[in-house]
Amino acid sequence: MITTDILIIGAGPTGLFAVFEAGLLKLKCHLIDALPQPGGQCSEIYPKKPIYDIPAYPEILAGDLTDKLLEQCKQFEPGFTLGERAETIEKQDDGSFIVTTNKGTQHKAPVVAIAGGLGSFEPRKPLLENIVDFENKGVEYIIKDPEIYRNKKVVIAGGGDSALDWSIFLADVASSVTLVHRRNEFRGHLDSVEKAQELKNAGKIKLITPAEITAINGNGMVESVEVTKKDENPIILETDHFIPLFGLSPKLGPIANWGLEIEKNAIKVNNALDYQTNIPGIFAIGDVNTYPGKLKLILCGFHEATLMCQAAYQIINPGKRYVLKYTTVSGIDGFDGTRKEAPKAVVKKIE
Amino acid sequence: MITTDILIIGAGPTGLFAVFEAGLLKLKCHLIDALPQPGGQCSEIYPKKPIYDIPAYPEILAGDLTDKLLEQCKQFEPGFTLGERAETIEKQDDGSFIVTTNKGTQHKAPVVAIAGGLGSFEPRKPLLENIVDFENKGVEYIIKDPEIYRNKKVVIAGGGDSALDWSIFLADVASSVTLVHRRNEFRGHLDSVEKAQELKNAGKIKLITPAEITAINGNGMVESVEVTKKDENPIILETDHFIPLFGLSPKLGPIANWGLEIEKNAIKVNNALDYQTNIPGIFAIGDVNTYPGKLKLILCGFHEATLMCQAAYQIINPGKRYVLKYTTVSGIDGFDGTRKEAPKAVVKKIE
Repeated sequence: MITTDILIIGAGPTGLFAVFEAGLLKLKCHLIDALPQPGGQCSEIYPKKPIYDIPAYPEILAGDLTDKLLEQCKQFEPGFTLGERAETIEKQDDGSFIVTTNKGTQHKAPVVAIAGGLGSFEPRKPLLENIVDFENKGVEYIIKDPEIYRNKKVVIAGGGDSALDWSIFLADVASSVTLVHRRNEFRGHLDSVEKAQELKNAGKIKLITPAEITAINGNGMVESVEVTKKDENPIILETDHFIPLFGLSPKLGPIANWGLEIEKNAIKVNNALDYQTNIPGIFAIGDVNTYPGKLKLILCGFHEATLMCQAAYQIINPGKRYVLKYTTVSGIDGFDGTRKEAPKAVVKKIE
Repeated sequence: MITTDILIIGAGPTGLFAVFEAGLLKLKCHLIDALPQPGGQCSEIYPKKPIYDIPAYPEILAGDLTDKLLEQCKQFEPGFTLGERAETIEKQDDGSFIVTTNKGTQHKAPVVAIAGGLGSFEPRKPLLENIVDFENKGVEYIIKDPEIYRNKKVVIAGGGDSALDWSIFLADVASSVTLVHRRNEFRGHLDSVEKAQELKNAGKIKLITPAEITAINGNGMVESVEVTKKDENPIILETDHFIPLFGLSPKLGPIANWGLEIEKNAIKVNNALDYQTNIPGIFAIGDVNTYPGKLKLILCGFHEATLMCQAAYQIINPGKRYVLKYTTVSGIDGFDGTRKEAPKAVVKKIE
């Protein structure tokens, strides 16, 4: 059982900044995220795209934003349960909550902050009857650890940046990479399309277009896929892995069944005070919440996370009065023993 | 008469970010600030101090924060009335407001956003009977334009960073600089104290400690000051300028008389919706406002500014529906004709 002060569901920008604000209040955080790395959408969907409305960043790439937030909170030593989806929540007699993931990992905390963004990102799956039988047995929708493909035969399907970028990356890792797309045209960064063209010319990526995967075969594990090119007979392609990269679509998922007030696929919170939900002790911050005038902007999530932490402090330290300290004046004491502070003024005679 | 969409009182971080958010909604802003430059406290009081709790900046100097915010909003061409204090506000029949400064400059706008921080920074003045007679006639409490001291005789009083830093700066500008302090010890950055010591050794700054200015003389303009060293007889020092730098203390000032609901020296706003005050069309954002759970943090001002702009849009464009656009997706069109946008995806065949 993992125990912490604030259990944060969702490791996107809002969740990561909550770790920092909680740390200032000496509260420890643990984050659960269905994606294999922190950063949420910013890391998974558009790491190389610029964001222009992060305050004081005229421009920042979404991936760099994640890196900065990780750097800012690392001294407060957040824990992570990654690649697992928060599935159930149970209130305990002592007022705390136990949250269990789809893989059975249990987490206990007096405060839960849902920072789930638009929801957990679920892959769009090809319409193949028996695909569920091969999930994690050769079929993967998200690449969590590229090393598992080393010296393996890989078939990737898709026509966007993900399909292009992973084909390019795995060309040096896998023993063979075949990229299958139902159109001749790919949609992606010019760089990626050009690089894929180069690797195709060099024989390092095999391309089959316009074509679709029409069947998966195997005995337990994937052994081959059937590829059908337009107006041609299907062919059988031996492979160890089949990776359909058709995009991710956000789903509120199991959280929708936690007894929280839901409105338009978002969780209603008390924006007049602390972004708490209808269940005391459970907060919702960032894109996942809704209230009058709500804007789904990262900078709003930062504010909501900060106010949430103050309320969490009161729940965890009942009756204790908290006096706001300014980091410029008081500095920061990390849980890892580090200290950051402004250079001190000296009091010195001029002779 | 200066006209604009949103008149912002206070050009600190919150006011500057409001310019950016307003610009995204095609609203133009003009800012009034009593200080001679934008940035508020960050520029005037602690430009060289690090802030640790700006989201995604593990550390940023307050002066750099101002620079980044100015850079982020510059494409939306904000207007500035600097070195003037907003004094009176009058509601017009058409629903708009006219705000007049202490120097008589008039501004008209349908929406006023007070982003006044802790208030306008008023100098702490020495207790000298006739000092008011010499204000702006040789006595200045804030240095707005160092050039006016070129080849002039200057007496600075004070023992902190301001007194040290301006003495150092003016040593190369003024014909003579005398620094008077009531103690022998100065309190400031080690660098500043050491540099002042060097300049004193080189004869470029004259130091009189422990001493106080006990009188100002002149016929219209300052001609001399009386300096009294502890246990000694006063001496007369000829000078063109006397600059007491005893610190600034924030005062809500004339805004307190605008009919706004005030609580604990801050303006009450509706945090459940849009940070509007009790007077429709007047908003208060950043450290100047108060509401249940308020935290006086810059990051909260950013959020408040953003929600305020949405409400301002509705006031200025009644009945028009605004659909939130993401800068990553839609890019930014500056009022100066510039365009920022993410590199477009290409749709391209791989041959």
